[in-house]
Amino acid sequence: MVIVGELINTSRKAISEAVDNKDAKYIQQVAVDQQEAGADYIDVNCGNKVFNEVANMEWMVSVIQEAVQTPLCIDSPNPLALEAGLKLARYGVPMINSITDEGERFDTVLPLVLKYKAKIVALCMDDRGMPETAADRMRVVHSLYKKLTAAGVPETDIYFDPLVKPISSVGTAGTEVLETIRMIKAEFPNTHFMCGLSNISYGLPKRAVLNRLFVAQTMAAGMDGYILNPTDKDMMGVVHAGKALIGQDEYCMGYLGAYRKGLYGE
Amino acid sequence: MVIVGELINTSRKAISEAVDNKDAKYIQQVAVDQQEAGADYIDVNCGNKVFNEVANMEWMVSVIQEAVQTPLCIDSPNPLALEAGLKLARYGVPMINSITDEGERFDTVLPLVLKYKAKIVALCMDDRGMPETAADRMRVVHSLYKKLTAAGVPETDIYFDPLVKPISSVGTAGTEVLETIRMIKAEFPNTHFMCGLSNISYGLPKRAVLNRLFVAQTMAAGMDGYILNPTDKDMMGVVHAGKALIGQDEYCMGYLGAYRKGLYGE
Repeated sequence: MVIVGELINTSRKAISEAVDNKDAKYIQQVAVDQQEAGADYIDVNCGNKVFNEVANMEWMVSVIQEAVQTPLCIDSPNPLALEAGLKLARYGVPMINSITDEGERFDTVLPLVLKYKAKIVALCMDDRGMPETAADRMRVVHSLYKKLTAAGVPETDIYFDPLVKPISSVGTAGTEVLETIRMIKAEFPNTHFMCGLSNISYGLPKRAVLNRLFVAQTMAAGMDGYILNPTDKDMMGVVHAGKALIGQDEYCMGYLGAYRKGLYGE
Repeated sequence: MVIVGELINTSRKAISEAVDNKDAKYIQQVAVDQQEAGADYIDVNCGNKVFNEVANMEWMVSVIQEAVQTPLCIDSPNPLALEAGLKLARYGVPMINSITDEGERFDTVLPLVLKYKAKIVALCMDDRGMPETAADRMRVVHSLYKKLTAAGVPETDIYFDPLVKPISSVGTAGTEVLETIRMIKAEFPNTHFMCGLSNISYGLPKRAVLNRLFVAQTMAAGMDGYILNPTDKDMMGVVHAGKALIGQDEYCMGYLGAYRKGLYGE
């Protein structure tokens, strides 16, 4: 299970202000908190500040790496911002978030994947837009798998994001994602997954309840990577318990450790 | 999703005392509580009082039916106790819990299934004992399906119980069950499931956390029936949220209803 910590994103007000004020200490504390909570990667996203994205990305990546040695997930639709982050990332193998099968985006991001030998989050989306069914998603998966591996990207570096949509608008949104996971897992067992899934609960009350259960359900279907808030104890409790339930936690040591750390209350 | 309320079982001290003291009011209150909490069936089990099991079963079934019209799940390994309950059960279609593929048990329970046209919980167990793998379970599923349908039991009346074992003793206990569910669902899509799954967490702390997540995970794999405590708001909250996530709750009305009833807290 690979956990990408999602908190360093300028769409969050506190992060936005810290970036504007060049408050390195705050950004670094959020990085340390996520690393200590178990993040395998730290996501870096400043995509909502489009006019300064390259400079902001360079500054954020630099200050984060003064505080933690966790690998980074460089997160932008803009290839210039991606490269600005990638060229400074110096711990482990960086992850790029993300590529799609949209013609121009694929063509501009692929060279960065190859140049930096990065892991790549591949969204199940092409020029036809957002997918509805598992079959729509698998069409894109087949195309992306073929093009990425043909270009020399190892299949183990591909992290598919099935694109989660709200069950409040389409009742089958969850089942289509579960089905996509099972199909990818069956057909391309050496690839991975990376997904932020809080969209599933958009428009409904008590979203955290739905988000946590959907993590447990997708894990059982084969998903092995999540972009989430690792400092959310309830969510990380679900990750540890979910791993124990699906046989990915020898002697339940991870679950017992989470219990001792108080992730399940007193 | 079919929920069998598990609380009327003499292995629970309060129920045992109520049966000993012929405290009909207490038994009836537990039946009403479960019915109001959403139980589709009320389980009746007095199997730990072996010397009076038949008389106790008759008394329990009678007093429960003075309070609720919910169908009953008559629960015993003893065919005499099963028949004592079945002949008095008068609301809806009763369920028998359970048959196995053990020679003598199969032969003595099958006539009751046919005579009372009952739904039947079929445990994945035969004379070779408790199963380990999904393949072990499917061997029994094939045999039971063939013998039950050949005898005239409609396949829609068969409720397979995959037999849940603790992850604390075998790490793959959960995945073998998930795999069994998917295999039964693929091969016999018109049959159903019925399962008590709290065994999954035996020997571990914070068992309720694991039990609830395993309900969500097994639902996503295709399980459609549980024997559980319907008055446990956290557990029923998971059932409602789980159904919404897997597209079995049109417009999320069940989830929103559970939210309004306070199943997810304030």
